Amino acid sequence: MTTSTDRDQQIQKLRELIADIDSGMLTTVDDNGSLHSCPMSTNGQITSDGVLWFFIYGSSHKATEIEHNQQVNVSFVSPDRQRYISVSGTAQLVKDRNKMQEQWKPQLQTWFPKGLDEPDIALLKVTMDKADYWDGQSSFKPQTIS
Amino acid sequence: MTTSTDRDQQIQKLRELIADIDSGMLTTVDDNGSLHSCPMSTNGQITSDGVLWFFIYGSSHKATEIEHNQQVNVSFVSPDRQRYISVSGTAQLVKDRNKMQEQWKPQLQTWFPKGLDEPDIALLKVTMDKADYWDGQSSFKPQTIS
Ligand SMILES: Cc1cc2nc3c(=O)[nH]c(=O)nc-3n(C[C@H](O)[C@H](O)[C@H](O)COP(=O)(O)O)c2cc1C
Repeated sequence: MTTSTDRDQQIQKLRELIADIDSGMLTTVDDNGSLHSCPMSTNGQITSDGVLWFFIYGSSHKATEIEHNQQVNVSFVSPDRQRYISVSGTAQLVKDRNKMQEQWKPQLQTWFPKGLDEPDIALLKVTMDKADYWDGQSSFKPQTIS
Repeated sequence: MTTSTDRDQQIQKLRELIADIDSGMLTTVDDNGSLHSCPMSTNGQITSDGVLWFFIYGSSHKATEIEHNQQVNVSFVSPDRQRYISVSGTAQLVKDRNKMQEQWKPQLQTWFPKGLDEPDIALLKVTMDKADYWDGQSSFKPQTIS
């Protein structure tokens, strides 16, 4: 059994692993069942309850896919360090202005030139169900957090 | 309309983009619909008809997932160059010894210490249905190959 303290420590470990990785690859499933990935800027953070936050255009193709199928994967890769992380999660669009203010980072301006004044801006909340990570060349089998 | 020559050129472009990326993240869907990724060594190659080959253990969890759901995604990331590639494809296990001999690379020994003498070794053939790539910081919208 995983006690809550174990899980806290594991999420802490995950946070360290992704801390300096700028973008994750978000994989979503479309209505035909095919899988697409796209890069999404992270703020290198995962909350203590296992949530990743992204900014997204509410009317984008990706957002529509997620409304139809909430199961997603976010992978983080740091090839130099042979670090590979898979976060399986459930995604949800959130249009909470306060939360946006809290999560906003200036470097997101590249993707959202109008910043929080962008009318179509939304948050994508990914709640981790399970994570696997491979850290360093020697790790054939992943470490798993669930 | 995409003519076959266009497609040839696009696949050539894709080949250049992934040539020096050692591993891709393979995302598969399990029976509950949740999405998992894991790193897979590539030989940096995609054939002219859009096929990626990987080596896999035939009895692995991943292989079973693929037997149940053939839709997969392989993403390639080179953070230094801001290069992000998504290949949506259909996967299939192939146990053809000649093909294995053709695809084998010595560096795969890390994952398959017995090499081609490993009884459980199999090939995973991913046939590209669609690819998207982002090459360089400025590209918000991907280039698409289908
Ligand atoms: C490094 C990088 C980071 C990105 N970060 C984001 C992001 O945080 N939010 C976002 O909506 N799009 C981001 N994009 C663009 C998306 O990957 C995607 O191309 C865009 O959202 C269009 O998606 P759509 O095809 O679903 O409409 C980023 C692209 C790159 C290359």
